[in-house]
Amino acid sequence: MAAKPGTFTTIQWSGGLDGQIEMIDQTLLPAETRILRLRDVETLWEAIKNLRVRGAPAIGVAAAMGVVLGIRDADSMETFYNQLNKTCEYLASSRPTAVNLFWALERMKQRAESLQGGELKALKEGLLAEAKTICTEDAATCRAIGESGAHLIKDNASVLTHCNAGALATVQYGTALAPLYLAHERGIRFQVYADETRPLLQGSRLTAWELLQNGIDVTVICDNMAGALMQAGRVDLVITGADRIAANGDVANKIGTYSLAVLADAHNVPFFVAAPFSTFDLSLPDGENIPIEERLPEEISQGFGQLTAPENAHFYNPAFDVTPAPYIQGIITEKGIIQPVNNEQIRRLLIP
Amino acid sequence: MAAKPGTFTTIQWSGGLDGQIEMIDQTLLPAETRILRLRDVETLWEAIKNLRVRGAPAIGVAAAMGVVLGIRDADSMETFYNQLNKTCEYLASSRPTAVNLFWALERMKQRAESLQGGELKALKEGLLAEAKTICTEDAATCRAIGESGAHLIKDNASVLTHCNAGALATVQYGTALAPLYLAHERGIRFQVYADETRPLLQGSRLTAWELLQNGIDVTVICDNMAGALMQAGRVDLVITGADRIAANGDVANKIGTYSLAVLADAHNVPFFVAAPFSTFDLSLPDGENIPIEERLPEEISQGFGQLTAPENAHFYNPAFDVTPAPYIQGIITEKGIIQPVNNEQIRRLLIP
Repeated sequence: MAAKPGTFTTIQWSGGLDGQIEMIDQTLLPAETRILRLRDVETLWEAIKNLRVRGAPAIGVAAAMGVVLGIRDADSMETFYNQLNKTCEYLASSRPTAVNLFWALERMKQRAESLQGGELKALKEGLLAEAKTICTEDAATCRAIGESGAHLIKDNASVLTHCNAGALATVQYGTALAPLYLAHERGIRFQVYADETRPLLQGSRLTAWELLQNGIDVTVICDNMAGALMQAGRVDLVITGADRIAANGDVANKIGTYSLAVLADAHNVPFFVAAPFSTFDLSLPDGENIPIEERLPEEISQGFGQLTAPENAHFYNPAFDVTPAPYIQGIITEKGIIQPVNNEQIRRLLIP
Repeated sequence: MAAKPGTFTTIQWSGGLDGQIEMIDQTLLPAETRILRLRDVETLWEAIKNLRVRGAPAIGVAAAMGVVLGIRDADSMETFYNQLNKTCEYLASSRPTAVNLFWALERMKQRAESLQGGELKALKEGLLAEAKTICTEDAATCRAIGESGAHLIKDNASVLTHCNAGALATVQYGTALAPLYLAHERGIRFQVYADETRPLLQGSRLTAWELLQNGIDVTVICDNMAGALMQAGRVDLVITGADRIAANGDVANKIGTYSLAVLADAHNVPFFVAAPFSTFDLSLPDGENIPIEERLPEEISQGFGQLTAPENAHFYNPAFDVTPAPYIQGIITEKGIIQPVNNEQIRRLLIP
């Protein structure tokens, strides 16, 4: 590999059962690269809630590891199952939109069920192994997403992305950025426009940072500049990540994704979403019922540590929006691109 | 009037020929209401350049007053005309997009020409009177824009605006906000969504502030939330200002206006622009040749003194974009609404 996405570690489990979660504190980037070491569930909950770790796949990995933190001190089978359920319920309350969180918790519960009957120690070890597997799988899955989508990145292409669906949102490679990393490995030359992504600036703080770490040319724009850029013919392709995808292909992703999709449509710019299978929620027929997290007004009014709006104004701060399937040219997954995006194509790939 | 837009003074000339320009420093709002007193052209140039005074009509008024600062010390006719030309050229270099700046400078030059032959003192007094007239006319013009557009604001309407085209962008009332102030005076109840308008946050800092000063309900959103809001059916009308309007009705306005227009179009939300005649530039057949000011990267990367992007990233920071006429349902002027927006309708109203 020419460049190695993941010269930094987004999240990992360090050591054995008495070990800890290690993760970059993403709220401090790009000014500071601080590694957090987490040893209890409450601290992890806070880290997820306050976006120290964020991005749907990374949240899933964090939650799986959080389950280990929650059960490792259990001294009886009864305590173990109590703590397992309590921990899962607690972590599920941290953020409502990304389905990978619930997917990972469910997978940990199922693993515990499949290990039923064994020793307590073996149960705990089994769950740690499962969390580590989820972590390893995530990196492999993201690389596979990259392989599926790399051919979309042509020489001299200009690719626009929103928020951060990169290595920092996953264990490695990312989802939306994985095709870019793979294309870069293959010597394709291209440039990236990163929407800064208000209010929390994951695009300018995180996407620009990790692309530069890997030697990829990146230009940061404010979210409201994307239309003018497309109007000028300076965007060949849009790729974003996803936090939850309904059975019909409607995509919940970072607020602003829907605006981008409409703009891309108006300018005939192909709009792709990249996500692993774990982001699909086939229990929801369409995007209408995806719960949308609303966050605190202060993210808008005091986003730069300074008051940038009158305190007595109202604020509306949804963290996500829903892009209807017809706006999406294709969904890039670890098993190939779903295209066209509809119920049938999704089921064909996901439920073989 | 129930509410009186302009309980604060955006810009005024205080005193006689030896007087000064007084203006709110808009870069400090909403945290601080500081009145600047300007007595020389260099300080005014800096104030325009750094957006202490901004908004196309207010820049025009500031420039006219700046001419007075530039000529008042002339001790001979020769010096007077030298300083007049020098001052106009210098102030014209402060910001390239808003045509009102050039319009006001041209009007001051023409006034000097029409006064030719008189005493030096009378010439100076004549120019001061002209600057004051431009100032008074601006307030009257904006009120007339409000009268033209107030009927567009229905009871319970939800109106989205971008940047600040309010009383702070003019002498009083504003352009885009004038119909809102007039509707408010008439007892219409409505709510306003204000795009925060990155990078300089004129929407959250200025529009929200002045609407609240006048008792109008306002909700601040990030620029990337407008699409989701329209998708949810929560926007009935969009009104923005303009910095320059070409002969065919193409509108240059704050970056992000074009994106909004495309989004409004996709959601069948009427999109209106409000501007006085002085914003039209009939010398340009269309928007393609409107010069677009590009501003410093730091406005994006260090919004409010904090590093929010890696220093070695690239940045693209155009201050304006151009919205093609077909996206604009009507242009609200002091003489009525131009609708449909095309060459013929514009000439019919502007050149009677």
